Amino acid sequence: MAEPIFERLCLIGLGLIGSSIARVARERGDIARTLVACDHGVGVAARLRELDLADIVEVDAATAVRGCDGVILCTPVGSFAGIMEQIAPHLAPGAVLSDTGSTKGSVLRDVLPLLPEGVHLVPAHPMAGTEHSGPDAGFPTLFQGRYVILTPLPEAPPAAQEKIAELWRRAGAMLESMDPVTHDKVVAIVSHLPHLLAFTICSTADDLAQETREQVLKFAASGFRDFTRIASSDVDMWRDIFINNREALLEMLARFSEDAHALGRAVRWNETQFIEDRIRRGRKIRRSLIEIKQA
Amino acid sequence: MAEPIFERLCLIGLGLIGSSIARVARERGDIARTLVACDHGVGVAARLRELDLADIVEVDAATAVRGCDGVILCTPVGSFAGIMEQIAPHLAPGAVLSDTGSTKGSVLRDVLPLLPEGVHLVPAHPMAGTEHSGPDAGFPTLFQGRYVILTPLPEAPPAAQEKIAELWRRAGAMLESMDPVTHDKVVAIVSHLPHLLAFTICSTADDLAQETREQVLKFAASGFRDFTRIASSDVDMWRDIFINNREALLEMLARFSEDAHALGRAVRWNETQFIEDRIRRGRKIRRSLIEIKQA
Repeated sequence: MAEPIFERLCLIGLGLIGSSIARVARERGDIARTLVACDHGVGVAARLRELDLADIVEVDAATAVRGCDGVILCTPVGSFAGIMEQIAPHLAPGAVLSDTGSTKGSVLRDVLPLLPEGVHLVPAHPMAGTEHSGPDAGFPTLFQGRYVILTPLPEAPPAAQEKIAELWRRAGAMLESMDPVTHDKVVAIVSHLPHLLAFTICSTADDLAQETREQVLKFAASGFRDFTRIASSDVDMWRDIFINNREALLEMLARFSEDAHALGRAVRWNETQFIEDRIRRGRKIRRSLIEIKQA
Repeated sequence: MAEPIFERLCLIGLGLIGSSIARVARERGDIARTLVACDHGVGVAARLRELDLADIVEVDAATAVRGCDGVILCTPVGSFAGIMEQIAPHLAPGAVLSDTGSTKGSVLRDVLPLLPEGVHLVPAHPMAGTEHSGPDAGFPTLFQGRYVILTPLPEAPPAAQEKIAELWRRAGAMLESMDPVTHDKVVAIVSHLPHLLAFTICSTADDLAQETREQVLKFAASGFRDFTRIASSDVDMWRDIFINNREALLEMLARFSEDAHALGRAVRWNETQFIEDRIRRGRKIRRSLIEIKQA
């Protein structure tokens, strides 16, 4: 077995993502010699002990990070500033700090100003998930064959970047690097806007008159079913993502809205060529996805 | 084996839906004593003979319907008026005429004025489909456990309604009746609007700069993947659906658009309670679907 990447790795937040990292680390044994899991959720620490997901379970983040050469924030992105206030004075010199947040500009904004000298920040975003959340929802193969996007700072030492990259390689993920601004735009269109639309269509349906709503549910065709699958995700996580990727998300919503109204206008005025063109472009994107084996 | 429902049944349009009905009829033997399949698509008639999907294969609709006690239009809804002009003089007295269109107000508008006296119209909408189309895409279990909505005219004789109902029962479907206006509103929100949104988000992504678009495809998370699955449907069918359910679709798009912009505004102004409420309502609809076993 390879040498562990970290002597003592602390995961903060053991939800779907954090508990999946813990499961990979426990299963492989070569991620961390000692694994510390920290979560202050009601009953979560007890559950982590029952599941035997770490060597040490803590509820206090300041205590948890002491003496760790690796720390990964796996909580919703809106909590990062508050957690940094707690842990910054206790981070060990030379430690690598990473995260799994879905927005990366916000990490620079919230984490960087509080980063102690000698601690190296390597932000990461594993593009994996399910509609479930909490420490029981995780599983060790969650990241296999999925992309993890790193948005490293130019000043982060290569050795620190390599540790986080190697962690994700051992979890089975494919790595890409990107600057934070590009990252936030890409995820706004491929993930955040689709979720905003899915939450919205469910609300729109919910607002229909009672009789119609029952029939909406009864006859939910596959189209609507797929939307509700997207819409059944964690409340805190998605609130934080929307707020922390505000600019890119609102830009994509504006572009989308123009395009939706252009299609609506074409329907109103019977502009069949425009409608057909839009349908064909959907098919083209779909075919591209099949070609690169992402669908 | 039960007596066949029809002595001579003609299916017009052997795409996904029509060819699936043909397969059910061939497999069971108790749908029609003689099955006539009519399609003027290039090469479709030859393919229907190869697949042995009917007793008689025709390319001319006027010839195909002669002497039939049952005729079902399975083509895109925009073609119904033109087909009626061809077949109306040749429909046998006492015949039952049905269709499988996704919009029902348009059937009354396009079919009813040309209906010969003594021919009974029983519109139906099987809520089943896949992302594939054409005579090879059909399969005999397509309708099993799926809803078929009948929008019968008050003046249609019960015996005619019962024949169409029994056909769908034998195909394994669950039956519901609804007036055409309610039908068109329900399908606008559960199916037509989701497709319009899916086609649009693919177009929006396609319009992004070349570099970003490649990354959109590469990192398409599950959210976007579900949208592209919806968006990969038949061009003619969806163009016709949008145009023929114009009013209900544009009403639902307007409601949706108000709701999407309200959520966008909440993101802009950091109104966390509003955002959380919207996410929770999505989850509520999702749970309702799971309870009634539609998800």
